[in-house]
This record gives sequence, C-alpha cells and structure tokens, in this order.
Amino acid sequence: MSKLTDIYGKSEPGAEGGNFGVDYVINYQIPPNERAEAEASFVQLIQALTSVGIATEVRHGSSKDSLLVFIKVASSDLLVRQVYRARLQDWLSGVRTSSPDKNLSTTLQDEPISEAERLRLIYLMVTKPKDDGGAGITPGTGQWRFVKSVFPLHDHAFNKAWIQKWSGKYLLDQADLDEIRDKFGESVAFYFAFVRSYFRFLMVPAGVGLLAWMFLGQFSNIYALTSCLWSVIFFEYWKQQEVDLAVQWGVRGVSNIQHKRPEFEWEYEAEDPITGEPVKVYPWHKRLQTQLLQIPFALVCITVLGGLVLMCNSLEVFINEVYAGSGKQYLTFLPTILLVVLTPTFTGLLMKVAGFLNVRENYETTDAYNAALITKQFVLNFMTSYMPLLFTAFIYIPFGDILLPFLEFWHATAQTITMSEKPLPTREFKTNATRISNQMFYFTVTAQIVNLLTEVVVPYVRRQAIAKAKEFRQKSSVNDKDHPEEAEFLQRVRSESELEAYDVSGDYREMAVQFGYLSLFSVAWPLAACCFLVNNWVELRSDALKIAIGSRRPIPWRSDSIGPWLHALGFLSWLGSMTSSAIVFLCSNADTHTKGSLANVSGSTFLLGLFLAENFYLATQRIVRFVMSKLERPGLQKERKARFLVKKRLVEENLGQAVEEKAATPGIEASDRITREALEEEARRISTRGHGSPQELFWQRQRGMNETIEIGRRMIAQSAAEDDKASSGPSPSPRA
Amino acid sequence: MSKLTDIYGKSEPGAEGGNFGVDYVINYQIPPNERAEAEASFVQLIQALTSVGIATEVRHGSSKDSLLVFIKVASSDLLVRQVYRARLQDWLSGVRTSSPDKNLSTTLQDEPISEAERLRLIYLMVTKPKDDGGAGITPGTGQWRFVKSVFPLHDHAFNKAWIQKWSGKYLLDQADLDEIRDKFGESVAFYFAFVRSYFRFLMVPAGVGLLAWMFLGQFSNIYALTSCLWSVIFFEYWKQQEVDLAVQWGVRGVSNIQHKRPEFEWEYEAEDPITGEPVKVYPWHKRLQTQLLQIPFALVCITVLGGLVLMCNSLEVFINEVYAGSGKQYLTFLPTILLVVLTPTFTGLLMKVAGFLNVRENYETTDAYNAALITKQFVLNFMTSYMPLLFTAFIYIPFGDILLPFLEFWHATAQTITMSEKPLPTREFKTNATRISNQMFYFTVTAQIVNLLTEVVVPYVRRQAIAKAKEFRQKSSVNDKDHPEEAEFLQRVRSESELEAYDVSGDYREMAVQFGYLSLFSVAWPLAACCFLVNNWVELRSDALKIAIGSRRPIPWRSDSIGPWLHALGFLSWLGSMTSSAIVFLCSNADTHTKGSLANVSGSTFLLGLFLAENFYLATQRIVRFVMSKLERPGLQKERKARFLVKKRLVEENLGQAVEEKAATPGIEASDRITREALEEEARRISTRGHGSPQELFWQRQRGMNETIEIGRRMIAQSAAEDDKASSGPSPSPRA
Repeated sequence: MSKLTDIYGKSEPGAEGGNFGVDYVINYQIPPNERAEAEASFVQLIQALTSVGIATEVRHGSSKDSLLVFIKVASSDLLVRQVYRARLQDWLSGVRTSSPDKNLSTTLQDEPISEAERLRLIYLMVTKPKDDGGAGITPGTGQWRFVKSVFPLHDHAFNKAWIQKWSGKYLLDQADLDEIRDKFGESVAFYFAFVRSYFRFLMVPAGVGLLAWMFLGQFSNIYALTSCLWSVIFFEYWKQQEVDLAVQWGVRGVSNIQHKRPEFEWEYEAEDPITGEPVKVYPWHKRLQTQLLQIPFALVCITVLGGLVLMCNSLEVFINEVYAGSGKQYLTFLPTILLVVLTPTFTGLLMKVAGFLNVRENYETTDAYNAALITKQFVLNFMTSYMPLLFTAFIYIPFGDILLPFLEFWHATAQTITMSEKPLPTREFKTNATRISNQMFYFTVTAQIVNLLTEVVVPYVRRQAIAKAKEFRQKSSVNDKDHPEEAEFLQRVRSESELEAYDVSGDYREMAVQFGYLSLFSVAWPLAACCFLVNNWVELRSDALKIAIGSRRPIPWRSDSIGPWLHALGFLSWLGSMTSSAIVFLCSNADTHTKGSLANVSGSTFLLGLFLAENFYLATQRIVRFVMSKLERPGLQKERKARFLVKKRLVEENLGQAVEEKAATPGIEASDRITREALEEEARRISTRGHGSPQELFWQRQRGMNETIEIGRRMIAQSAAEDDKASSGPSPSPRA
Repeated sequence: MSKLTDIYGKSEPGAEGGNFGVDYVINYQIPPNERAEAEASFVQLIQALTSVGIATEVRHGSSKDSLLVFIKVASSDLLVRQVYRARLQDWLSGVRTSSPDKNLSTTLQDEPISEAERLRLIYLMVTKPKDDGGAGITPGTGQWRFVKSVFPLHDHAFNKAWIQKWSGKYLLDQADLDEIRDKFGESVAFYFAFVRSYFRFLMVPAGVGLLAWMFLGQFSNIYALTSCLWSVIFFEYWKQQEVDLAVQWGVRGVSNIQHKRPEFEWEYEAEDPITGEPVKVYPWHKRLQTQLLQIPFALVCITVLGGLVLMCNSLEVFINEVYAGSGKQYLTFLPTILLVVLTPTFTGLLMKVAGFLNVRENYETTDAYNAALITKQFVLNFMTSYMPLLFTAFIYIPFGDILLPFLEFWHATAQTITMSEKPLPTREFKTNATRISNQMFYFTVTAQIVNLLTEVVVPYVRRQAIAKAKEFRQKSSVNDKDHPEEAEFLQRVRSESELEAYDVSGDYREMAVQFGYLSLFSVAWPLAACCFLVNNWVELRSDALKIAIGSRRPIPWRSDSIGPWLHALGFLSWLGSMTSSAIVFLCSNADTHTKGSLANVSGSTFLLGLFLAENFYLATQRIVRFVMSKLERPGLQKERKARFLVKKRLVEENLGQAVEEKAATPGIEASDRITREALEEEARRISTRGHGSPQELFWQRQRGMNETIEIGRRMIAQSAAEDDKASSGPSPSPRA
C-alpha cells in the first residue's frame, strides 16, 4: 500500500485529472491478415463517432498491431443536451419522480452531472444503435470486431486517495459508497453496499458462533436456529436496504430500462401495447423450448460433478482411513490432486455448454441474458462448492456403510494395480466426525486465502512482470514515436488497455458462495462466520484494489438491485434452514446411533426436524416481512414525498388555485344561498309548468332548513303527546 | 321469483327511479326518555346537513318514536364540484392515472357520474368531519347516537330487472359485474366477481372429483395433488384478476385511501413525513401490547371450541358405536343437540371478546379495524367449521384408541346416570371409516341447504309476517297522516328502513369456509366440489336476492381487492396441501395398519408425505407465480399505457416540441459543424493564450475527422511495412 506511487507512475501528468480530458479510449486491433478490412472499418469508426459529435485522436497502441483512439465529447453543449434527454427519458420510464427543468442550466444547477453519469451517457452515444441517436458501435461484434474494447481511463489521483483512505478505516460509511457511485456507477456501488451490509450483519453470527464454539460445540440446535433467523433477517433487511439505496441514488426502476442485446435475433415485428411503437419479437414458446434444455443440463452437471466428488471423496476415505499399505504419505495427495485438476476441467467444459445454451436462448436484453447466465453459473458453483460438504454431512457421517462398496472397489483396484498376491494391509473403516470441521476449515480459511492470492497478488505480480518485459522489448519500437509530453500518459493508457475488464458478478459470486457456506454448513463449524468476517474486511479492500489497479476502469452502468444474486441468497437461506437441521440431527448422534443405518424412530424424528425447520424458516420470514413492512423506510418515504410534491405542484401550476377554491366545500352562508337559490329555481319551474310533479311536490313540502326543523320538532312533540295520553284517540297530525 | 311485483308493491311510484329524487334516508330514533336531547340533536342534524348544501325533508318514521329525514344534494353544481374534487384527490393519491380536466363539463363528458359514485360522495358529504368539508355526522355515536342509520333507497325497477335477468342466466358475464359496480359500488361488485371466478374454476375439481369418486374412491393421492395444484392456480389467478378488475374499474390503490375511524383515540400529533400535515398518532407499541392478547385469546378459542368438539364427538362415538343399551334412538340426537346449542353460545361469547379486543386495539382506519375483526372471526370460524372434521380425520380414524379413556368416561357417566347395578350393554369399539364422508356430506349438502334457508327464506317469511302485523297495527296511526300521493312511497321506505344492513363480509366468510372444506377435506369425499358448484349457482342468485330484497341498499363503498379474505384463502390453500396428504396417508390405510398405533415406519412415511406435500405446494406456487408474471395482464397493461400517454402528453404540452428537437442527436452535418466550431474555438483560445496546455496540444494534434483518419491509416500502413521488412531497422514513424 505504501508503494502506490510506484504503481501509478512517478508523477501525475498534466491537466484535468491527468487524463488530457479523454473520456474513453478505444483499443483498436489490426490483425495482420485482415489489415485492409480493419483499415476500412477504422475509417467508418472515426466517421461514425464524428457524426454523433465526438472528437477523436489516434495514437499507437501497445503493440504494433493496435491503435488507441482517444475520444471525448466535442462540445459541452452537446453533453448537456444528452443529459437533459436522458433525464427526460428516465422520467418517462418512471425512474425519476419529476421531469427535468425546461431550462437546461437550471437542470444542471439542481442536479450536477456526476462523472459516472457523463461517462455512461458518452458510452451510450458510442454504442447505441444509429436510429436511436448513437454511433452504433458494438465492440467485438460484426463490423466492429476490430474494436477490442472501449474503456474510460482511471482517475489515478482519486484511486490513490481512495485506497489510502480505505486501508486506514475500520468500517465504511455511506459517503464512501456515494463516492464509488459517482466514480464507478451504481452497479459497482451496489456491490460495495451489499458487502458493507453483509459485513456488518456478519458480526452477529460471528459472535454467536464464537460462543457456540466455546460452550455448545459443533452441531448445536441453538446455533442452527439463530443462524436461520439471522439469514432471514439479513435477507429481508437487504431487500429493503436495496430499495432505499436505489431511491437515494435516483435509480429505482432502472432495471426496467433494459439495453437491447445487439446479438438478439427477432422473428417478427409487433406493436408495443403500451407505447404503440413497433417492437421486435422472438416467440416465447421457442425460447421456452430452449430453456427446457436446462433440465438435462442440470442433470448432467449433477451427475458429472457429483460423481467426481463421490469418486474422489471415497478414494480419499479409502486411502486415509482404510488403506494401511505402503506409499500412504504420497497417496494421500492423490484425491486432492485429482479433484483440483478435474474440477476446473469439467467446470470449464460445462460452462462452455452453459454459455452456448444461453446464447441459444436468444434473450432480448443484456439484463435477461446476464441473469440467465448467472443462474446457470450458480448451479455449477453450487455443485463444485457444496458437493464435498454435502457428501460428508449426508453420506459419510450418517451412512458410512453406503461407502463400503466404493471402498471395496478401490480396494480391488488397488489390489489390481499393485498386482501383489497377498491382500493389501487395511484397517477397519470407521467414520470420523471431525472430517466436516476440517473441510469447513479448508473452505473458510485456506480457500479464501488462496482465493485472495489468486485474485489480487498473482495478477499484480504477473502484470508487473509483463510490463517490465514489454517495456524492455518495446522501448525502442513504439515509445520513441510518442511526443515527449504525452509519452508517460500514453505509456499508462497502454498498460491500462492490457488489463482485464472488471466483472462485478465474479465478486458477487464469491459472496453468494460464502453466504451459502454460512447458512448451509456453519452449524458444523460455528467459527466460520468469524473467519468470513476477517476475510470480508480484507475482501472489501482487495476488491477496491482490484478495481483501481487490477482492472480497466469499469463502464459506470446503473442498477437498482444486486439482481439475480438476490434469488440465489434467498434460495441458500431457505435450503440452509433445512440442511442445518439435518446436519444437527444426522451428525450430532453420529456416534450413538447404530452406525450406517438410522433406526426408524430416528427417521421420523429426522423428517419431523426437517419439516419443522422449513416451517420455522417460512414463519420467521413471514413475521420479519410483516414487521419490516410496518417500519417506514427513509428511501420509500422520500420517494413518496417527492411524488406527492410533484403532483401538488402540478395541481397548483396547471389547474390553478381558482378551480381548487371553487371546488371547496361551501360554508354555511354559501350553502344556505345554494339551497335557497335551488329551491327558488324549483319553485319557478313549478309555477311555469302550472302543476308540479309528485317529486317536486315532495321536496316542496318543507321550504328550507327552518321549516324542516319546525315540522320535525312538531312531530317529536306529537309523539310525546301520544305517550302522555296513550289511551285517548289520535291527536291531529301536522301536515307541512 | 314470479311474485316480484308483490315484493316491490303494486305499482312503481312516481318520477325518476320511483324515489322522488331522494339520495339518502336518515332513520332518526327518538327514545321517549331522551326526547329533549333527541330534539336538540335533530335541529343540529338539519343545520349540519344544510350547511354542506344538502336539502332535507322530514316525515314520520315507521313507529311513532322515529322520524325519516329525506336528503338530496341541493344543486347539481355542488355535486359536480364534489365529483371534481374527489377525482382530483384520487389522482393525488395515485388512484387515477390522469388528473381530471379543468373544465368541469369536459370531465363529466369523459367520465359520467355513476350512481355509485354519486351516492358515495353524498354519503361522504354527510359523514366526513367538518374540517374536511363534511357535515360530520357519524351515525350511532356520540352526539349522533339518535341517527340509527343512513341508507340509500333501492332502485326497485333495476332490482326487479336484475333478479329476473339472473334467474334466467346460466353464467354471469363482465357486463353483469359492471352493472353491480355502477349500482352498489366496487366493494359489492368484487364479491360477485370473486364468486363468479370461483364458480368457473370450481368446474375443474368438480369434474376431477366426479371421476375420482367413480374410479379412485376416497383418499386418492391423484385427487389430492390435483386439488392442491388447482387451489394454487385459482389463488394466483384471482390475485391477478383482482388487479385487472381494479384497473378496469379505476379503483386500483383505493385501499390506500383509508377512512378514519371516528372512534379512534390518539395520543399525540405528529407531522406526516410525506404531506407535511399534522396527523394524529397512537403509539404502535401500545397497540402491539393489546394485539399480543390475541395469543391467549386464540388459545382460549382452541381450548373451548376444541374441547366442545372433542366432548360431543366422543359422546357421539360412544352412543353410536359402543353403547347398546336402551333409548339409543333418542340418545343419538343428544350430542348433535349439545353441539347445536353450545357452539353458538360459546362462539357468541368469544365473538364478544373478539369485538372487545378489536376496539381496544384502537385502529386508526375502518379498513384496519375491519381487517383485524375479520381475522379474529376467521379463527373462530375455522374452529367451528373444521374442528369436527379434523377430529375425525386425525384422531378418530387413525388413532381410535386415544378415544378409549373418553369412551370409558362416558361409559362410567352413563352407568352413574342410569344407576343400574348391572353393567350397561356395550359393543366393542371399532372405527368406522365412512364417518368422514358422512360428515363431509353433512357440511357440503345439509349445512348449505340449511344455510340457504336461514339466509334468504326465513328472513323473507319473517319480514312478511312482521310487515303484515305492523301494517295491521299501524294502519290507523301513522299512515293516515301521510299525503296520499306519497303514502305508498313512504310505506316502502319505512319497510326498507327496518331491513338489516347488508354486510358483504358475511358472504365472503361463507365462501372462504367453503373453500376451506374443499382444500382441506375434499380428498375424503371428492364429490364435495360438485355440491359446491350447485350451491354456488344458487348462492350467487340468492345473494343478489338478499341485497335486492332482504337488506337495506348498501352504501356503495369502493374497494380494490377482496381484502383480508385473500390471506384467509392463501392460508387454507397452504394448509390444505398438508391436510390432504395427511388424510390420504392416515385414512387410506385405516384398515390395514395396526389400529390405534401407527408403526414407526408409517410415522416417517407420514412425515415424508407431509414434507413433500408442503414443498410440492411451495414449488407449484412459485412456478405458477412465475408463469403468471410472464403473462401480460390486460388490466396492468391498460394502466401502464394510460400512465405512458399521460406523461407523453405532459412532455408535449409543458416542455414543448422545441426542446425535444434541440435535444435530438445532431446529424452528420450538424455534428461536423459542432466539431469544427469546437475545434476552431479551441484554436482561438490557444492562439490568444499564446501557448496551449498539454491537454490542448493533445487534442490539437489531429484537426478534425479527416486528419485522424489519415494518421490512423498511415499507422496501419506502417505496421504492415514493419511486417514486410521485419529484419530491417525501424521505419520513420508518422508524427501528426
């Protein structure tokens, strides 16, 4: 952290954020075998950009087969108009509660343009289709396949300050999130907001877990219940927090504004029932047909990855707990090596299939496409992350005997391999209840450290090495062509252009998987939450480092939620309620019940526990939701207030106070007048017509309030009189 | 039905709907012991009404201690302004998508005032608090305790046509519902819409039930699954249908506009965070404290009513299946008599407690008050309706042996009562699996017929008798005081004033209870749905009859949902998935398993079934919801279209086409100009300053599009040249 200066280069170059006012850099590749096409396309690129009002400059790329095109929006007027247009569009789609002011400068005064907003709009100018007012450049596809990437430049001064600030801080606050939002957009800010909330919530299970570990040991019912309750509360809290943040950042509802996928293939055009404009349609039943392929795909995933886990784990059990022959100290590593080698191979293969399926499903918007892809990845992640633990918790510990045929198989195999005549030395198989704790320790501590290393340290070292090598190699070829005052800047842009794109979904996945360990298995090792707490403190900072140094600056997309991950968390929380209960039951009695075969009594107790756990989860969820719905959230309140004020203003402006006043309820005087006027008018009508209708007569019996009162009182008096002389004849009745 | 004329009186009197233009009738009581107060209050009543612009007429009531005050809105202008004001308010609260037109006559042309709207607004004029522009009359409470009721008059011509039309129709259509909505308001219309949907959906379980009854018998797994699936689909369908209807009737969101309860007691005033107006507040924790009393209340209900059912049922079992002594033919009826006498007694008592609790909970709005009351009633109804069947299904059939102590008790009691020396003759106790079918038959057929009789026929007969008696008694006292041309009308109003108020929640309750029988127990007697189908055909018509003839005309309240009943249905549907599975398991093997004690294997199978059934329910619900969310509902679509058009119109009107055009993307020419202008301006700036900054220099290297293209092409050519002579030295690089 102290060597940040080294990372950013010795001095911060030039004016205005050190980036020469560049908004985006286009990394343009010129493959030697397609040089002519690339050149033609380059001309089109510059023309397309200029046509929408973007200024361009071209420089040498990091290799001789690439160019860097620097772009900025040509005039600030154009940008302001783009901002106005976008905000108007937001209002039309319901994202903003009020329409932007007609006066452009007022609009900007009320709500200045943030860096994220400017960059997002410029990116849209570059990539939107031509008939939608953009330059229609779709990086990497079709005509624009030579456009390798379009990326904004890091604001190094900000990044440096950011990393330094965070490394000296224990907890993040709202201002930190707002800062990220203004720089990197809501999509990235939501990730940090989520991890921040999660981190703070984690303190509860960490504390409870520590106590449980000290006083209750593994497989404690109390810990399982607390953990289930916690996960429900956290999940519901986050759902509300998300809405709050979205309102605060003015992005509530942006998930409804979806960007069309350029790859979307439509079959026919139809009229949009709402806007009346023509829309491109792909029949849903065709998509459903493709989507149904997900079922066999999931089955294949389960079979392949499940089988792999079963094989490697049973082999490991055989070697560690049964085999007593020679070479045991080396063989111990065999299953782990097999698992480490084969899992990525299979996962990679299955990921390819998933990607292929996802393309075939032909989603219309990038959001739908990404959500579908994330769901598929989640299935794979679920298998690879949790299968070994599920194996231990639900097969190895309670039903160890089931493994006997597998152990026999390995035994026979080993016998065959060694080709020895005498039987291999073995021990009697005995399940080892600490296996699950060891595994949890591996997944929560070892794996997280390894992950941190591969995520931050390794790329950093590799990048430094590559940069050094390149610097050495290219010193003579490209650099000396640069103008000296730009040389350092261009050098930096070239190295940024070689970085990976930042993908926030990878970071979400890590958190979701972690949440899964916590809710599914932490009952087997209550210290997990403590480890995750430490890990996430580092994770938050290492993710910041990854964005600032390890990746190209992300395009600041908007978002109003953590999207499909929300469903993943909900699913894990639900499943966790049941696995926790099951693990408590199956593993805590591992020593007492007849090994390998649960008695029938236990079977029904087990199912009862499962049933109760699920219903405890559902009931808790219902109660928490009810309570949360009663609490007035500041965000929603703010939104409702804004909507109310807009409407009130509109009423006052457009409809005028006059109408309001006219519509006011008449006071006594006014209404007296009304009644009298109405009655007089009616009387006139009657006199002109000569004779009144029965209805007119009915309402003319008592003229005005006072007569009604008078007659009513007479009737009351009469009923009193009747009471007094109950026996005498009927008194004369008043006729009005 | 053929004697409708008799019911309505011989001839339809006078003009305009036969009601002399009367909007509401106030039934004013004058208790002999409070005559002075009643008279003072009467004067205030007339003054208050007149002050808000309502014309009044007073006539004799149906007895000598009551008056009838006829009211109508004094001028149509006032009414129109009330309508405008109300619609504006609706728009402010988000119920309407567009604000009403400033021009009042345009507003009425676009959307004429329906009868329900007029009556509702006039009722609000009468009852709204004074500072809210109403007359502040709250029937039955405080100062206005002599106002027994305020009710609109039936439109007899409409009612007659309505009943005649419905009695000749097999299925209702949307137009029938719209008609009800215009006459009786959305609150009543929603009930009929619900029963209509429910009736149409019932055809599925009726058909499946018939087939199941013929081919599968009782306790069929297939029927249980179908029934569960059906109830989920129906529930989700209705939730969407409700929204659709609400949009169509323009009432979506009215449940958010709530009427304050006049009885609400507040503790302090606070500022509304949204409107900024002061609101009256009762601390939620105090309410919660009272609400917690519901838990002991529910326990008392369960104990009292559950105990009653257990007692009576075990007694019945004893008498019918064990006792073989004398007088059996009479004793058979004893438990039924006990149940019939004691259930209403206890229920009435508990209802009183529930009502008392509900008042103590001090709800702010009538909606919250009613919802809470309905929930409490539902608990009581649940106990009285389903307890006997739950007893049979979960105690009597599977665990008959549990009953032995009870049977012993009754045996001993009988022995004591008869005081005979020799033991009473008994048979061996043997459970009878048909008991549940018999009970179901009772609840689905007998009880529904009895219910129909008590609901429609009995009140009709009683009313006729009372009317005859009164007519006879009062002929001489009141009627001869009437003006002859009004006599018949007044006579009719007097009899309407004596009718019961129509309470739609009673009808909902019936349907909810029926839905409960269907989803909880129909697996024990699959014909239930058929019976309900027949019953509901009649029910729809008898309910119409009840509104038209048997009750005062209801005040046409609005509503956008069936309200708390939705939760009741959801709960019953969820519970039904589990009871069905449990009944199938427990009862279908009633004969095969060891009587009275389920083996352990069965225990776990049972729990497994329960667990699977619940998860089948949850999964089905999820899938159905997902599928339904994909289907574009016409109502929601209509609403979104309306919102879109309003915004579009506002943009066009207020912001002007000019701004839109200015904000449009520049064409090639325009942007070329922009770029050139911008560049020229920049060039000027540089020349004035003498020397450019590094940034200005950077963007001045290539002046305009063509130079960028030129330089870019040269760079590409250079990279090609380098490839060609890879071994020779670096070629001269282009410097722009």
